[in-house]
Amino acid sequence: MSPDLLRRRIGYSFSRMELLDQALTHRSHGTPHNERLEFLGDSVLNCVVAGYLFERFADLPEGDLSRLRAHLVRQEALCQAAQALGLGEHLRLGEGEVKSGGFARPSILADALEAVIGAIFLDGGFPAARDAVLRLCRPALAALDHGTLGKDPKTLLQELLQARKIALPQYSVVATHGAAHSQNFEVECVIPELSVRTKGSGRSRRTAEQEAAARAFEQIR
Amino acid sequence: MSPDLLRRRIGYSFSRMELLDQALTHRSHGTPHNERLEFLGDSVLNCVVAGYLFERFADLPEGDLSRLRAHLVRQEALCQAAQALGLGEHLRLGEGEVKSGGFARPSILADALEAVIGAIFLDGGFPAARDAVLRLCRPALAALDHGTLGKDPKTLLQELLQARKIALPQYSVVATHGAAHSQNFEVECVIPELSVRTKGSGRSRRTAEQEAAARAFEQIR
Repeated sequence: MSPDLLRRRIGYSFSRMELLDQALTHRSHGTPHNERLEFLGDSVLNCVVAGYLFERFADLPEGDLSRLRAHLVRQEALCQAAQALGLGEHLRLGEGEVKSGGFARPSILADALEAVIGAIFLDGGFPAARDAVLRLCRPALAALDHGTLGKDPKTLLQELLQARKIALPQYSVVATHGAAHSQNFEVECVIPELSVRTKGSGRSRRTAEQEAAARAFEQIR
Repeated sequence: MSPDLLRRRIGYSFSRMELLDQALTHRSHGTPHNERLEFLGDSVLNCVVAGYLFERFADLPEGDLSRLRAHLVRQEALCQAAQALGLGEHLRLGEGEVKSGGFARPSILADALEAVIGAIFLDGGFPAARDAVLRLCRPALAALDHGTLGKDPKTLLQELLQARKIALPQYSVVATHGAAHSQNFEVECVIPELSVRTKGSGRSRRTAEQEAAARAFEQIR
């Protein structure tokens, strides 16, 4: 993918192209790298999302707004947005990171996306950054479900079962694959009373549990 | 103090006065109260302070910027800024809160200040909110010491002693005053090798320790 295509996907034309270059430079590659821009972009992102949620959900109390925001700015969501942009191809990483597949690491992708947001804020001011954030997060914003309010699947499943007075699900790791630094967990979620048994997998036990819970939730609902 | 004087001190003229009224209304008083505005203002404050620190300290790494920001937006700092505005007199509290002295509670003051920032953001946009934040935080920003980087006194004292290879200070509560809901702690900080013995007091043990540490730090330095 050409740098031009990336700029078009981001939807913002930089006056100072070096800011975008810096945003895409991981510290393993050398200085100037993107950590300071990430610090800035993180706060811009939080502010834009807060303003958006405040306006869109005029009746929601503060606690629900906080939860929705946490859902939108979590690493997984940012990583998805970064992948949709094809940001990974444009990252500048040190050799060690390249070899270990760092261009695809969720934390590196999410951080780089925040850094890009910080770069836009510096280059074009708050309105430009807000437009970019709302564009980058559009799929996640569109998928926001007022009812589930950004609750994670395990919480949703638990609430659903409690409402029906059914015993809580049991989670257990049924397999792990791969070496220590790139393990993959396979988890089973069992709800005996409903004869429900679903599986999930992920890079952490928690992620795998969430996936299994999401599947159980869909089956029951 | 008149509402006009408060508006002058805040340094911003609201088009929608009801936003300022809401920002000054604690939930104990009824709806609409200031919790949603506080959520918004908190993120605006963090974003403005991040941008300010990014520009002012062009050489500081991300970790130091984070620590400085945490220092600037902590409850104690916001409470001081709120007191400088005389915000307490203008709060609208429920009867219970009024009786228990809620108008002076640090958390209520700090939250109301954040809500005022959120109200300015809604009324006048990001530039107006940024100007207001920088004005409200001016004393704290002026006092930022590049060397101490927003470290708390206990940390500073510990680092100073470690650098001189002196045993760490001992803190102990020497007295508590007042009823359970409004206790005051008196704490002593002792550094035997230097024959230093200082005292501090505060609404929590931690606050009292910090005050005692600050005094010891000043004596030794």
